[in-house]
Formats: sequence, C-alpha cells, structure tokens
Amino acid sequence: MAQKPSIPKGTRDFSPSEVAKRQYIISIIKSNFEKFGFQPIETPSFENSETLMGKYGEEGDRLIFKILNSGDYLAKANDSALANKESNKLTSSISEKALRYDLTVPFARYVVQHQNDIEFPFKRYQIQPVWRADRPQKGRFREFYQCDADVVGSKSLWQEVELIQLYDAVFTDLGLNGVTIKINNRKILSGIAEVIGASDKLIDFTVALDKLDKIGEDSVKTEMLEKGISEVAIQKVQPLFNFTGTISEKIQKLSTLLASSSEGMKGIEELKFIFEAISELELSKANLDLDVTLARGLNYYTGAIFEVASPKEVSMGSIGGGGRYDDLTGIFGLKDMSGVGISFGLDRIYLVIEELNLFPETVTSTSKALFVNYGEKEAFYAMKAIKKLRELGINVELYPDAVKVGKQFMYADKRAIKYAVIVGETEMNDGKFALKNLVSGEQVSLNFEELKNTLINN
Amino acid sequence: MAQKPSIPKGTRDFSPSEVAKRQYIISIIKSNFEKFGFQPIETPSFENSETLMGKYGEEGDRLIFKILNSGDYLAKANDSALANKESNKLTSSISEKALRYDLTVPFARYVVQHQNDIEFPFKRYQIQPVWRADRPQKGRFREFYQCDADVVGSKSLWQEVELIQLYDAVFTDLGLNGVTIKINNRKILSGIAEVIGASDKLIDFTVALDKLDKIGEDSVKTEMLEKGISEVAIQKVQPLFNFTGTISEKIQKLSTLLASSSEGMKGIEELKFIFEAISELELSKANLDLDVTLARGLNYYTGAIFEVASPKEVSMGSIGGGGRYDDLTGIFGLKDMSGVGISFGLDRIYLVIEELNLFPETVTSTSKALFVNYGEKEAFYAMKAIKKLRELGINVELYPDAVKVGKQFMYADKRAIKYAVIVGETEMNDGKFALKNLVSGEQVSLNFEELKNTLINN
Repeated sequence: MAQKPSIPKGTRDFSPSEVAKRQYIISIIKSNFEKFGFQPIETPSFENSETLMGKYGEEGDRLIFKILNSGDYLAKANDSALANKESNKLTSSISEKALRYDLTVPFARYVVQHQNDIEFPFKRYQIQPVWRADRPQKGRFREFYQCDADVVGSKSLWQEVELIQLYDAVFTDLGLNGVTIKINNRKILSGIAEVIGASDKLIDFTVALDKLDKIGEDSVKTEMLEKGISEVAIQKVQPLFNFTGTISEKIQKLSTLLASSSEGMKGIEELKFIFEAISELELSKANLDLDVTLARGLNYYTGAIFEVASPKEVSMGSIGGGGRYDDLTGIFGLKDMSGVGISFGLDRIYLVIEELNLFPETVTSTSKALFVNYGEKEAFYAMKAIKKLRELGINVELYPDAVKVGKQFMYADKRAIKYAVIVGETEMNDGKFALKNLVSGEQVSLNFEELKNTLINN
Repeated sequence: MAQKPSIPKGTRDFSPSEVAKRQYIISIIKSNFEKFGFQPIETPSFENSETLMGKYGEEGDRLIFKILNSGDYLAKANDSALANKESNKLTSSISEKALRYDLTVPFARYVVQHQNDIEFPFKRYQIQPVWRADRPQKGRFREFYQCDADVVGSKSLWQEVELIQLYDAVFTDLGLNGVTIKINNRKILSGIAEVIGASDKLIDFTVALDKLDKIGEDSVKTEMLEKGISEVAIQKVQPLFNFTGTISEKIQKLSTLLASSSEGMKGIEELKFIFEAISELELSKANLDLDVTLARGLNYYTGAIFEVASPKEVSMGSIGGGGRYDDLTGIFGLKDMSGVGISFGLDRIYLVIEELNLFPETVTSTSKALFVNYGEKEAFYAMKAIKKLRELGINVELYPDAVKVGKQFMYADKRAIKYAVIVGETEMNDGKFALKNLVSGEQVSLNFEELKNTLINN
C-alpha cells in the first residue's frame, strides 16, 4: 500500500534550517513583546463556528476552514439542503467548529470570556498559526503564523507611540535597516471625505486614493469620477496628489485642508501627539512617515492605522500592519473596550531577511562536534565524554553505527558540524581526544579539559 | 448580536501564566533535544486524508478530525451515500484533508517525501499540537501538544541508550526527582509467548499481564485462562508474577525462562547492552527499571519499549513513552528504515510539576517595573528612561493613562510587578526616579544609573 506522499496545497513542511530561521525571528519578536510589557496567551486552533462566522465579511466566511462533525454527522443534517445539494445551507448543520482565521477575533472572544480574570488595560501577545482557504500563490499560504500584540482597555495615545517603538525595536534587532513605518488616521480619511462632501463615498474615495502609487494621479481621478465623486470635490483634495515634504509640512497641509472638519482635526491632533513623542524619543533604525493614502481594512479601524514597508531594495510589500479599533469586543457583548494592536508578517519578514542575507550564520543550531564511532569500546569511551559535555550545555553527538569513517565525515559535513572527535586505541590509552576541524582539516590531540574549552570557545 | 462566548469542549485557552509555564517545560525539552543532536522540523496542521486514514486502526480513523472541502463541496459528493444518509461513506467525497492525529505518521511521510534531502541517520524532533475527537475528560483534551524525538536510519542500540539519557537529562533539568524509566523489549514478550506455546495469543497474553499491578496475580491468571491460554503455559511463566530483584537478577531469571527462544534471547541481549551502558554512564536523577509487563501499542514496536512513570508521590500514570519500530516508513513505500523514538507528555508533566511546586518563581515573565503615569509631561520623562531600559533588555512599562495612583498600583499588583517607578515634579527637577518596592513598601530616590542597576539585579 505504498503511496506517493504529498501535503495539501498551500501548506508547507519546514526543514531543520527553516525552523531554526523562523524561530530566530519569532524569538526576537517575542522578547521585544515582553520587553514592552505584553504577555502571551494561546487560544484553541478551532473555535465554535458562531464565534468566527460573520466576523470577516462574506469573503471571509467562505475562506474559513470548517471541521466536519464527528460520528454520524448526517443524522442532524438539514434535510432540505441535503436533498437540494445546497452546500452553503448544509454546512452549519454538519459542522460546528472551524479553524481560526486570524488571532484578533479569538482574542476578542478571550477577553470577553475571561474578563473577570483580566486586569485592564490588558497587553497581550499571541504567536500562533491561522488558516485560510485562499487560493495559494507566491508568498500566500493556507497555513501561516500571525504575530500580534494588542492592548485593550485604554485609549491612551502612548500605546500608539509604544507600538511604533516596538516595530523599531524588532526590526533593529533583526538588523533590518530602512524599514518605513507608515501611519495614517481613520479620522483624517473621514475628515477628507467630509470636507469634500463625499462622506457617503468614504470607502470608494479611499480605495481609489490608495492606488496612487500604482496607477498615478490621472487614473485615480478617473476612478473617483466614475464612483460619482464630483470634479469640484476632487479639486479640493488636489494637495493630496502631491503630498510630499516633512511630516510637519504634511500636517500643516492637512490642517489647512481639514480646518472645517472637527473629526479631521481630531485625527490631526492624534497624529501630532504621536509624531512629537516619536521625534523626541527617537527611533533606532526605522523611519516614520505619514501616508494619507493608507487605508487597510478601513471599516475596522477607528483611529491610527499602521503599515510597515520593507526596505526599498527589496520588493516585498508590507511586512506588518495594525491600528486602533474602538469596539473590539462589542461583537461578543462587552462594550467600550478600545483596542490598538500591530501584527508582524512572519513569512515576508523571513523572505526579506533571507534576500538581504541577514540571518546570522549561527542561527541553524547543529551539534558542535560529531564523535566518530569506531566500535563498541571506543564508543563507550566517547559516550563518557559526550555525557560530560552535554551536562556543560554543549551540543555533541556520537555517530550511532561503526561504519566507514568517510561516511561519518560526510554526515558531519551535510549537517554542517564543524568538528569531528576521533577516538582510537592510541587516544584511549593516553586519555586523549583527536579533534579534527572539518573545515580546515587541522587535527590536534587534546585532553578532556582542552577539548571542552575548544568546543565552548568555537 | 451579543453572544455568550465559549470554546469547543476539550479545547483550552491558556492564560499568560499558563503559557509561561508551558514554555518553560518546552524550552527545557527543546534545549535537551538539541544537546543530543536532534533537529527540529514542522509539518502542516492538516494532511491529505489518505496520509492519515488507516494508520491508527478503526478507532483512530473515527477520532481524526476531518476538514470539509471548500466551496460547493456537495457537487462531488457520493450520491448514494448522500441519499441514504451514510455519514461514513460520504466523508471521503466531501473531505480531502484532516487534522494530524499524532506526529509520527506525518514524520514518516516527511522522511519519505524528502528522503533525497535528508542525511541519514536522521535525528529529528517535533513539538506541535495534535487533535483527536476523543471524549474529553480530566487530563484528556481534543487539542494537545506532542514533544517527540526520533532517529530513523540506524539500528544501533546506542540510540536506546541516548534516549534514556535524554529522558534523564530533561527530568533532571525540570528538578523532578524519582522518575522511573521503565523498559521492556517486544522480542522478550514474543519469546515468552513462544516458550509457553501461545505465540498466537501474544496480544491476549500481554494485555492480561499488563494488568498485574492493578488486578493482581489471580485475576490475571483467570483472564489468561479465559483467553484460552493453558494452565501448563501459565505455570511456565510463574516467575513473571513475582518479578522482583535487581535488573541483573531479572535478566538472569528471563535468561532461564527464555533459553529455548532465539528471539527472546535476542531481546535479552539488547536489554543487557542498554543496561550495562546506562549503569556505566550513570543517570543523574531518574531510575531505570526492567518491566516485563510493559507492552504499549504492541503491534507497533519491534524492539525496545519505554515508558516513564511519574514520581511515586504523584498519581499521574505515564509522563512519556516510546520505543523502536523497524518499519516506520514502509507505509509510504520506503522500506528498511528502522526508527526509535520517545515522547514527552507535556500536559501531564505540567500537572506533576505544578503539584510538586517545582515551577521556578521567575517563570512567569512580567515587567520588572511599572512607571506610574501622572500626566503628559511626567510620562515623557518616564518614556525616555523606559526606552533606555528596554534597550538594555529590561522589561518595563508605562501605565498608559494618568488615572488614580491606587488603580495603577493595583494593576502592578495583579500583574505581579515588583516595582513602581514614580516620577513627579520633584523627581523631574532633580533628574531622579522614586523606586517603590511594592512588596516591602520601601521607597528610594535614585538616579538613572542606580535605577538601572537595581532593576538588573532584582
């Protein structure tokens, strides 16, 4: 019953070196989350379907992986849906659980469910896989990790300031220069729509504006006209089409444009606080910029909107994003819980670091030395040393079989193990170990102390 | 549309302190896996159904969570199964993927699929969740982690020796004294059945023998008789019913009993090698014992069988297990790949460590200090210090809102944060920080250097 084994499309196996590189990124994100006072939680991989369905729009509902009920699931099936082969109508009667689609909705559910045990403001982080039945394509998978940090229960703008610092700290630790943290504010977008008399067309307007980079000013204006935004209105926002300068200059331009909109001016106030704080506290490696075209899940965010662009020399799109949402937990019945959070795009960050060759050479953990196996007596001698080395925290291993030495060296080579320790009759009689550097070919005879010190220091 | 939120039965939310404690155990397991030369891999959460189905017996197939196909899944449904409402027959036509049930089958699939990229012997570890539609009960969940280390591609008994050392190393690092690693060998069980002329009743025999601890000698004998094992045969294995003494004595007894069975004697040879090696190399904290009643998934293992019993003062059953299986990858078409591996039971280990109060106090990472928020100017002053402290790797946070100090102290208390840093007009003028120990109530005025040093050293 031999099968040619494969894995479902859109999923991945991770080899030892891939796991090590992913863990390297995750551990930097994690330690910075904790440095900023965030605490980890974990939620189940699947949730009750009603927790997830209807939270991500129609498209989202379609992309949620549903889990078939166990046992005789057809016993409770919707009979008319069954008879008419209506998949959509049948689903809820044969599937009660679904794989989580993101970490935000499960987090909201967690906060509401455990509200009596939580001390607010609650700063939580969560690094877990999510699943989406998306069409797989380059860089888009059906199983992927999200790395989220959110605060709920405080409207303080210091959170926005800290989240920008957090982005900066992570990318600095990763050695990634030239990352740009772009920020906008939903209130500014609302204000713009208001002053041009197109509040009812806020989404059409921002969707078009968002394309400025890609399709250019003329095409954006054409699209706006097509969507029913008047020529006069478009004229009013002319400054947005050439929105350059320093952040202060941009804020100045916006203040003029939005003078008549109290909501717009509120957004500007918020931006100003954040920019002034960041400019006084300073970022290490990242740049901060105001991008009025930035919209992201507009209906979701109510205040600040973040997006992180990878360094210019890599064409990768955004490697992180987030924002403030004033009613995170309302869907589960807990009102007035403002939240703000950011997310790191693990897969894309991995690709950027790989492309720029920024993974440290030591990231792939492998054994420091392979003890060559010459037979039972020699192996015993080796195992005594191995035991002591491991107790000192040094990763070493014995080749399990007494096969040809060439084969054992080849194994060490493929595993990128730098040293071989050779123990033969002579070494055993002298209480020594022959340490061979497999890169340089150099070989020295050492006692245990010397062996230990060499392995610790190399 | 408020819903009372809940999670599916058999699943769990993990709070910050629970995540921290689980991570503590996992990190000790992981670092020891690497110390022994094992490398991490990860496989997708769901596999193609044909990879999993039929690998765990009928019961296993039933307990595998199946994922409903996306889109109009009924279009390809088995019509007769649909018409007759035959759930079992329908499943394969509406579900192509399933959540992994353990880590062993996906590992076998991985080895076969990537055999050309793998250098054998392949020592891999894998720490990931698995899912089973089991009836939830105390200590049994529908989503739980497995922590597995396996070697494939070598029949060397040094692996068995190392796996015993690995168990010892992990439980020693966890501070768990009095763990017993029980070992048996499938060949010894076969040999016993052979010498009593009950080879065809091997499973009945071992299942009955396995109950010796619980139901006693007489009941075991009754069960054996009921299963058709003769009085004469039972008489022959009388030594097994009072199988005490040192390991050498036990091996001596077995050698007499199994003298006529070449397979049995092979099993004794293997055991002897392992015991002699371990007795020469010595274990730190764990005990090793020979338990001839130990069977575990008998049809699976072909050589050594391991099981780890928790310390006697805790009634928890086994906290780990494993063994050697000579044909791990045969199901996927790659023959002659002997494997041997062990597993750690994370949930039970957690409960044992909790019960014995062995989690270090520092395991729950929390901020070292909370900076009290008195308003914008003070917060700015605080944030400058916070930034520098974080750059030095110290976890600190600012309370985000300038609310009543009592509320801020209560937050620190609930979060188990030991220090509050208070910055008012006086401190700002003097370039100082008031550091209050929230446990002792003691308060001192420090400059930044002193603050930094106090937080690092406490």
